Amino acid sequence: MVEGAKGVLEVLQSDFAVDYLLGTSDFLKELETGLKSSVNELIECKPVDLESVGTFKSNNAAIAIVQMPEVNSVNIPKGELSLALDDVKDPGNLGTIIRIADWYGVKNIFCSLETADVFNPKVINSTMGSFTRVKVHYTDLYDLIKASDLPIYGALLSGKSVRDENLIPEGVLLMGSESQGISDRLLPLVTKPVFIPGRGGAESLNVGVATAVMLDNFFR
Amino acid sequence: MVEGAKGVLEVLQSDFAVDYLLGTSDFLKELETGLKSSVNELIECKPVDLESVGTFKSNNAAIAIVQMPEVNSVNIPKGELSLALDDVKDPGNLGTIIRIADWYGVKNIFCSLETADVFNPKVINSTMGSFTRVKVHYTDLYDLIKASDLPIYGALLSGKSVRDENLIPEGVLLMGSESQGISDRLLPLVTKPVFIPGRGGAESLNVGVATAVMLDNFFR
Repeated sequence: MVEGAKGVLEVLQSDFAVDYLLGTSDFLKELETGLKSSVNELIECKPVDLESVGTFKSNNAAIAIVQMPEVNSVNIPKGELSLALDDVKDPGNLGTIIRIADWYGVKNIFCSLETADVFNPKVINSTMGSFTRVKVHYTDLYDLIKASDLPIYGALLSGKSVRDENLIPEGVLLMGSESQGISDRLLPLVTKPVFIPGRGGAESLNVGVATAVMLDNFFR
Repeated sequence: MVEGAKGVLEVLQSDFAVDYLLGTSDFLKELETGLKSSVNELIECKPVDLESVGTFKSNNAAIAIVQMPEVNSVNIPKGELSLALDDVKDPGNLGTIIRIADWYGVKNIFCSLETADVFNPKVINSTMGSFTRVKVHYTDLYDLIKASDLPIYGALLSGKSVRDENLIPEGVLLMGSESQGISDRLLPLVTKPVFIPGRGGAESLNVGVATAVMLDNFFR
């Protein structure tokens, strides 16, 4: 389920298959014919109906019901940087990270099986449409990373400063959970521990924020 | 109101005046005598009581009722970088930004009068204790900025890349609202428009995330 004008327009412009499009008469009227034609079934309804079936408090545009894609990649791709999330459980954080990945052009996010579900409406909505451009895979991260000989960067307070490390955007950047950081099981697989130097009193940064700062340092 | 062990311990270690400390017997037992002595009144209670008066679903530690400080600074300080927030309305975003400011050693945040209230429990809780170290001022940003001759950096999609601009951490970094960006009224006051270069498909970054990436570029 994708809610609101922005997300629904993004999904209509993407390769995702849309089963149902629920839209207000205004929304459907202004929609380009080309975008409409890819939808299995169009249903005109009132804002109050969109609000009663969706999670948005107010929605005067549309809801799309979209087929979940099959995501079956099982290897870390070469020649690019991917993200791996070790039990990031908060849906808002996952959504933010997908949006950040899209901003920096990261195409794949590998999630541990305990990470929040990308198809949770809260995740989808907080990606602001970016879920259509970033592939999110669920897998056992240990096996995935173990099988790769690419650099495994890990965000660790004990790591080397991102200012000093030569950050080449290939391999994986592994981010730990909100409460525990990178788990003991995955820790030995990190070949390049990195951290973001701070100057103040805070003990840590939110995982989404830290992901953005890390990627900004990789792609500068 | 400050909830949970971490936030309450931070506030007890700060200069804030604590009127009431509600704590479980375990929490109060383990608390250092020095920290207890600064509290006006200690009240022992059960987790279920903490949960019924607070906003946390589970709280087996403590709640502190703290005096709101008077914050009366009316000038942008010289020799350091301050933040200014133009109608950042989401409490979670404000809390995250306070935590980020604390991480990078930014001491003052100037908020427009429409920005979320720092004393909203959702803000306080999402700062993870950082509200004790960062001063948050509410004022008319136009008058404040107009009166200053320091550089006014503004986060704008039409700005100069943070990679190219010589970022000196003095003056103000102005961040716009979640939906509108920097308002038309403040726009002419920006002397140094800056933006974060992206490589992918996302149209923008969340305001908290963008603040972190900006500050990381200032303090690298």
